[in-house]
Amino acid sequence: MTAVELIEKKKRGGALSREEIRFLLRGYVDGQIPDYQMSAFAMAVCFRGMEEDEVTDFTLEMAASGDQMDLSGLPGFTADKHSTGGVGDKTSLVVLPLAAACGLTVAKMSGRGLGHTGGTIDKLESIPGFTTSLTQEAFLAQAAQIRIALAGQTGHLVPADKKLYALRDVTGTVASIPLIASSIMSKKLAAGAQGIVLDVKVGDGAFMKTLPEAEELARTMVCIGKGAGRRVCALLTDMDQPLGRAVGNAVEVREAYETLRGAGPEDLAKLSVRIVAEQLRMAGRAESEAEAEETAREALASGRALEAFRRWIRAQGGDVEALQSADFGRRAPCRETVAAPRDGVLAGIACEQTGHAAMLLGAGRQKLGDIIDPEAGILFYRKAGEAVRKGEPVAELFASSPERLAAGRQALEPALHFADEAEALRPLLLGRIG
Amino acid sequence: MTAVELIEKKKRGGALSREEIRFLLRGYVDGQIPDYQMSAFAMAVCFRGMEEDEVTDFTLEMAASGDQMDLSGLPGFTADKHSTGGVGDKTSLVVLPLAAACGLTVAKMSGRGLGHTGGTIDKLESIPGFTTSLTQEAFLAQAAQIRIALAGQTGHLVPADKKLYALRDVTGTVASIPLIASSIMSKKLAAGAQGIVLDVKVGDGAFMKTLPEAEELARTMVCIGKGAGRRVCALLTDMDQPLGRAVGNAVEVREAYETLRGAGPEDLAKLSVRIVAEQLRMAGRAESEAEAEETAREALASGRALEAFRRWIRAQGGDVEALQSADFGRRAPCRETVAAPRDGVLAGIACEQTGHAAMLLGAGRQKLGDIIDPEAGILFYRKAGEAVRKGEPVAELFASSPERLAAGRQALEPALHFADEAEALRPLLLGRIG
Repeated sequence: MTAVELIEKKKRGGALSREEIRFLLRGYVDGQIPDYQMSAFAMAVCFRGMEEDEVTDFTLEMAASGDQMDLSGLPGFTADKHSTGGVGDKTSLVVLPLAAACGLTVAKMSGRGLGHTGGTIDKLESIPGFTTSLTQEAFLAQAAQIRIALAGQTGHLVPADKKLYALRDVTGTVASIPLIASSIMSKKLAAGAQGIVLDVKVGDGAFMKTLPEAEELARTMVCIGKGAGRRVCALLTDMDQPLGRAVGNAVEVREAYETLRGAGPEDLAKLSVRIVAEQLRMAGRAESEAEAEETAREALASGRALEAFRRWIRAQGGDVEALQSADFGRRAPCRETVAAPRDGVLAGIACEQTGHAAMLLGAGRQKLGDIIDPEAGILFYRKAGEAVRKGEPVAELFASSPERLAAGRQALEPALHFADEAEALRPLLLGRIG
Repeated sequence: MTAVELIEKKKRGGALSREEIRFLLRGYVDGQIPDYQMSAFAMAVCFRGMEEDEVTDFTLEMAASGDQMDLSGLPGFTADKHSTGGVGDKTSLVVLPLAAACGLTVAKMSGRGLGHTGGTIDKLESIPGFTTSLTQEAFLAQAAQIRIALAGQTGHLVPADKKLYALRDVTGTVASIPLIASSIMSKKLAAGAQGIVLDVKVGDGAFMKTLPEAEELARTMVCIGKGAGRRVCALLTDMDQPLGRAVGNAVEVREAYETLRGAGPEDLAKLSVRIVAEQLRMAGRAESEAEAEETAREALASGRALEAFRRWIRAQGGDVEALQSADFGRRAPCRETVAAPRDGVLAGIACEQTGHAAMLLGAGRQKLGDIIDPEAGILFYRKAGEAVRKGEPVAELFASSPERLAAGRQALEPALHFADEAEALRPLLLGRIG
């Protein structure tokens, strides 16, 4: 067996066997197979795809390339979630405590963001004192004690993905459903949870712009998860406008906190309840979808989810009092509102453009290693479909300097579309695969 | 402009501009663009192809990556030929002296073979004393004086192709019409001749197995040559059985010599005359195809081509007397004939299998650096379509040891197909593009 034979097999449209995939990935991680062969293979996959068994085998071999978390010592059903990423997506910050309040255990690995806004870890680090650098022992002990722990990825989890993703990034081979699906799922499988809910974002502000491609990605990931013996489903959710009203880091943490207090935006609460309801059904903790949603809704309404959130933040060193203070997420030195230029409705908020504006304000990274400004961001006073009057504030911008503020404003203004009447907006939940 | 953008453009099916191609190839030769990006690009080309202008620009930039021969100081019209390679293909050995005898000038770069049998240089080196290591000055002086010179490629000709070909060889990206065409034509353009006849082999023993793919390669190469301002045409010729009766090195040189004496196989003489006739028409030395063929046939029949051959071999240090001796190409210590197992006809000679047998006898290289046995090879007493009687010798094998002889015989026997009656064979010349 040689790497060239495997590249040529894939080029012709053949499916690689488990042994062939193992040879390729082990050789790549060991350095026996050079980058120039792996990039040619990845490009062939972009054109030829992978069959169901093949992408499952590929993912299992990726997951097996490093350490795999053993969560079997934790109490209760271990649940995970993953979002393919969007603008204003702070769902994990609500879902983790909500799941814990429902009796599930969430021991989650998360990442930093290279995009419009920070990742979950960047968002949480806007809370003074909060740390995600936990030893494996501390991580598991905390999950056992309070049912929630969130840590940055360790260096030994899925090294094959780390190496392959860096290569794909510089060889034009990122956009491939089987390569995206195996990259995501290899990390989820290695992270060890019994049940995984995938939130596949669809729309202008998401990586998947159309419903058919999002469905294909969702189907592929669900197929991999089931093939690996996990309980898994995927929700397809709208990303044609930002989720919630806040886009940034501290401003998003505040919104998650307010949602847990029952005072957050409806879409974020609804999506969080739905994700936890899916986890509860996987755990066998509900007979029906309605029962599962009722359980989650009650945990939110009762304040038990908020209590779980406070416990979690405190357990990881975060200053809960700072987080609860009235000015948290509102401390940026430079602030400015954008007013409606006319009477009517805010017809739409162009989502990718909004993300770009947030990045220019300082909330995201333009390149790896850039420092995020935790206070930078955008707060929308109106969402798409809501009525506005001329001169009324529609959004507020937060930044560390007038220059950043001006750059963000210039990018945001064309993202706001006004009209006489509201057009029909598509629902938040666009589909479910599982 | 970045390499990733260009890879992604090609992946989407876009055509690269001259500037983009220059950026890519110069960056690659300079080492600014790494192998892993170039291999991903090459794989995208395998799937997406290249447009006509694009492949011409790509070839011109390849040719411009190193030295380019200036043949403008030579007398007469400078003509070149190139074969895509087959079994028993010693055409250059006949065409060069025949073209010179017709008043054309052939200053040709040639290569060694990595395949069933040696390349033109390997074949010529079976003549005692013959050298292809000429300085550029000696090469041009000889071409000016006797109208023929043949040298191994210098290290400075088309370094982009050298580097890219080595990469394609290990990344499953050899089989791509635009990459094959640009590789061949970049070397032909850099070699500087005014007119180029391409001999595109089609069939079992050729790289192009079917007529449609051979036609596509031929069209692409002709398009590139014309786009570069050269006179160029392509002949599509049969390679379902070996060309001539000899397969090897010394045995092929002897066959070329016999052809120049008027005693060689008909197919080799016919193809050589046709190629030189095409060169004469490019040179404006004939009004019609018939007139051009007549001129070439007369140069062969008159013995002037044979004289040109002797002059050429002598000029490059070859021992013409040795070459003319009765046992030249018949000196292998181990010889054996293969007899017809029945009365009937030799219906076919499986060509690739024959090449493999020749390689096992010692006539070709299994891997780079292998030493060729100049005396090893096969001589066919019957060609496809000819009648045989049981027990009559059909072929003779030449090798340096009984073991090699046995291996070659084992490979050759299944390549010989016998039948009651001859089936219609396709003609030698299958088409012309130009």
